Amino acid sequence: MVATDAPKLGIIAGAGILPRRIADRCLARGRDFLLLLLDGHADPALQSGLAFQTVRLGAVGEIFDRLRKAGCREVVFAGKVERPSWRALRPDWRAAKFMAEFALKADKGDDALMTAIVAACEAEGFVVRAPSEVLDEDRLASGPLGRLSPTVEQSADIALGAKVARTLGRLDIGHAAVVQDGLVLGVEAVEGTDALIERSGKLRRDGAGPVLVKVSKPQQESRADPPTIGPATIACAAAAGFSGIAIGADSTLVIDLEATVAAADKAGLFLVAIETGE
Amino acid sequence: MVATDAPKLGIIAGAGILPRRIADRCLARGRDFLLLLLDGHADPALQSGLAFQTVRLGAVGEIFDRLRKAGCREVVFAGKVERPSWRALRPDWRAAKFMAEFALKADKGDDALMTAIVAACEAEGFVVRAPSEVLDEDRLASGPLGRLSPTVEQSADIALGAKVARTLGRLDIGHAAVVQDGLVLGVEAVEGTDALIERSGKLRRDGAGPVLVKVSKPQQESRADPPTIGPATIACAAAAGFSGIAIGADSTLVIDLEATVAAADKAGLFLVAIETGE
Repeated sequence: MVATDAPKLGIIAGAGILPRRIADRCLARGRDFLLLLLDGHADPALQSGLAFQTVRLGAVGEIFDRLRKAGCREVVFAGKVERPSWRALRPDWRAAKFMAEFALKADKGDDALMTAIVAACEAEGFVVRAPSEVLDEDRLASGPLGRLSPTVEQSADIALGAKVARTLGRLDIGHAAVVQDGLVLGVEAVEGTDALIERSGKLRRDGAGPVLVKVSKPQQESRADPPTIGPATIACAAAAGFSGIAIGADSTLVIDLEATVAAADKAGLFLVAIETGE
Repeated sequence: MVATDAPKLGIIAGAGILPRRIADRCLARGRDFLLLLLDGHADPALQSGLAFQTVRLGAVGEIFDRLRKAGCREVVFAGKVERPSWRALRPDWRAAKFMAEFALKADKGDDALMTAIVAACEAEGFVVRAPSEVLDEDRLASGPLGRLSPTVEQSADIALGAKVARTLGRLDIGHAAVVQDGLVLGVEAVEGTDALIERSGKLRRDGAGPVLVKVSKPQQESRADPPTIGPATIACAAAAGFSGIAIGADSTLVIDLEATVAAADKAGLFLVAIETGE
């Protein structure tokens, strides 16, 4: 994709640094964009120096209007968005229609929700891009990303964690599992990876610390809500006494790869990309 | 089983009220028993009025010696035992031998551990009984146990939770899942059900509260560490804003059924036994 030929991009921004990274990449390539911060989810302080607008998550009709008025033909969802309660959502007519349709579905997991959101955007005429597409980064080669490698025992824990995480993913529950010496200390549902790391760290045993394994759901709509890690994940895992992190080479988005690898090296954690094929 | 014909029972006691219930049942039936409290796991305060001995979990040789000297031919494991660190365990020779053998196994989940412990007891000549066998309680009929029943929506959540919990159980991870309106809020690994309830309660959405589903692992060695609930589980779920609890009719042990049902009724929670067949 030649960046300057690319149509104007609508960045619908949730929490964390990912929306900013995408905006920065657009700037570097001379691609026009509209940065829409979801009020209460995205952090305006992270966007310093960038032009942005703020919009309510529940104002779906307005989001579509603004995207169209700005001439955006493509959109990307970037950054975690906590599911609000119906009351906090204060849905406009378009959001209420969407929620009513979604409420009728049997599976209401995060992946089912994101798939429905992507479908709704496409029905409105937008092309939905994955963050990794927009960032246009190379797929990670499998193997250690930093200085350290897992031991044979840790590799066995990674294999177990990947099996567990993929099984959870198949049920649309979560992306991550924590394993130490053959024992699954924790599995992720909606609490998020940092909370999983903290909780599992408190349950860890003596010896080499636990391993975090984070991979995509096998059936995942990868354009929305891909599993991500970044320097903050490394800091969290190091503080909790972990020995390393394994991610899906083809599916897990590393936010600021260079800084993440440097943080892992500095903290003495291994960081390894693994194949998670079906 | 005519109780007074039953051989002397060794009760190896971990946390909670279950060991006491088993001892009380033995007393009521005139069955001899030896109550061995695992130091740091069982609560002596819960055994008031009962004769007991205290023994270290790591002193496995001594545990076998005491059981034999007391003339116990059958043993029952009752009450949760947190896995200690190797250092805290201070294993005697017999425990070290067991741990060394177990360390070589690929699967080190709780069920694998309990299966190995049962096998070790049997190799020493003891018959291992399930708590439910010793309590000699009727299998629960499936259906509501108290005054309240789940709604149609909650029944769907129970079905999803049972599917998730059984899948986790098949991987020897945990017994329980928490579901609210089609969304899996939390899944249990080694943190225990009360911790799962508290955590998931904080993640709950508006509307009817979440449902806890707790069932046995499909392949579980049910003589050791069966999933249990009791009045304390009801109190925990009520405090966390849950709407009810579903348990496996054939596999989940309800400690003090009458008090548990009364507590559920009083707290406005449904409590339902479900079939979880393969």
